[in-house]
Amino acid sequence: MRIPRTTIHRLSIYLRCLHDLREEKSETISSEKFASLVGVKPTQLRKDLAYFGQFGTRGRGYDVDKLASGIVRILGTGKIRKVAIVGVGSLGSALLSYRGFSKRGFEVAVAFDMKAGKIGRRSRWPEILPATRMAAEIKKRGIKIAVIAVPATAAQKVADKLVAAGVRAILNFAPTRLFVPRGVSVESVDLAMGLEGLAYSLKSRGRSQ
Amino acid sequence: MRIPRTTIHRLSIYLRCLHDLREEKSETISSEKFASLVGVKPTQLRKDLAYFGQFGTRGRGYDVDKLASGIVRILGTGKIRKVAIVGVGSLGSALLSYRGFSKRGFEVAVAFDMKAGKIGRRSRWPEILPATRMAAEIKKRGIKIAVIAVPATAAQKVADKLVAAGVRAILNFAPTRLFVPRGVSVESVDLAMGLEGLAYSLKSRGRSQ
Repeated sequence: MRIPRTTIHRLSIYLRCLHDLREEKSETISSEKFASLVGVKPTQLRKDLAYFGQFGTRGRGYDVDKLASGIVRILGTGKIRKVAIVGVGSLGSALLSYRGFSKRGFEVAVAFDMKAGKIGRRSRWPEILPATRMAAEIKKRGIKIAVIAVPATAAQKVADKLVAAGVRAILNFAPTRLFVPRGVSVESVDLAMGLEGLAYSLKSRGRSQ
Repeated sequence: MRIPRTTIHRLSIYLRCLHDLREEKSETISSEKFASLVGVKPTQLRKDLAYFGQFGTRGRGYDVDKLASGIVRILGTGKIRKVAIVGVGSLGSALLSYRGFSKRGFEVAVAFDMKAGKIGRRSRWPEILPATRMAAEIKKRGIKIAVIAVPATAAQKVADKLVAAGVRAILNFAPTRLFVPRGVSVESVDLAMGLEGLAYSLKSRGRSQ
């Protein structure tokens, strides 16, 4: 069964919210309250979870832990997956210091940059290697997921090299579309999307006042 | 009519894809091809656009320019909106250099940081002011949208000050939930979401082989 990408994205949102609830020591949550926290209609929530079987108990809502581990099982993030980051500019640096990845089952194992000044080891950061060693290291370490944080003009070339070295999934932060062979997945992160959602909420609130 | 947040998010994805198509000089696109480019089912695409009226022409597909300006009108990003960024660490710096915001109708007008070393003007960047001037500047400039790029521990305090100064929409990059009064919108950006989507695609492809 092919599950729509938008459902998979919502599962991420649900999982993040469940992590927050766990930190706040909530053990169960009603489906209505959960739907309102994550910002979807209750029918949408139930429909998304119905792809994967029965999660809630009528009248008691969802068990936070069980639902979280159910979603982790669906997403396939139960075992740690190694990730490489390409490009250690300001965005790449931000991604290297981001704690959220390890919480969610991803280990940034290595990073690559072209500039000599970026290369080396820093405390609490993964090793940064010269871009010339990228293909060999990715093959050697068996890395399947890479993050592209280079300028738009360099992104396609980097993607081609990553795919040739065995990468099968690319998270693309460069503001350009990437062309990859069949069997390779690309997710593009759109930093302006959140602002557009906010602009819409400002506009629609303005209208209703 | 209340439009679900997930539909608004998909409109952003559609808009980004339309911008790409425009750069590739495509003038029209069939709804099937467009749905496959953006990664949703054709029925979902038609349902999303149906909230706002008639966009396509049967047999000819969508006019790229018309659909893009229709979505811009819906989102309310037709006039430039000013944005403030709080926190000029590596992520804040990345956001300050990000070109995608202005393309989509947002002008980063000013940034704030606590550290004296970050304050000042740099070429092609908006002015960075001390965090102590945040409330006064936001009021003076009438800024309604702010981006929080400070550590999780500082995020709620920053949000409270922003709201008190008149901000009505917050894009939150700090990995923590923010509590805001009614009438204020928060969108949280989840950098791990893309990786989870990729993990799912690796897993489901592995299974089908």
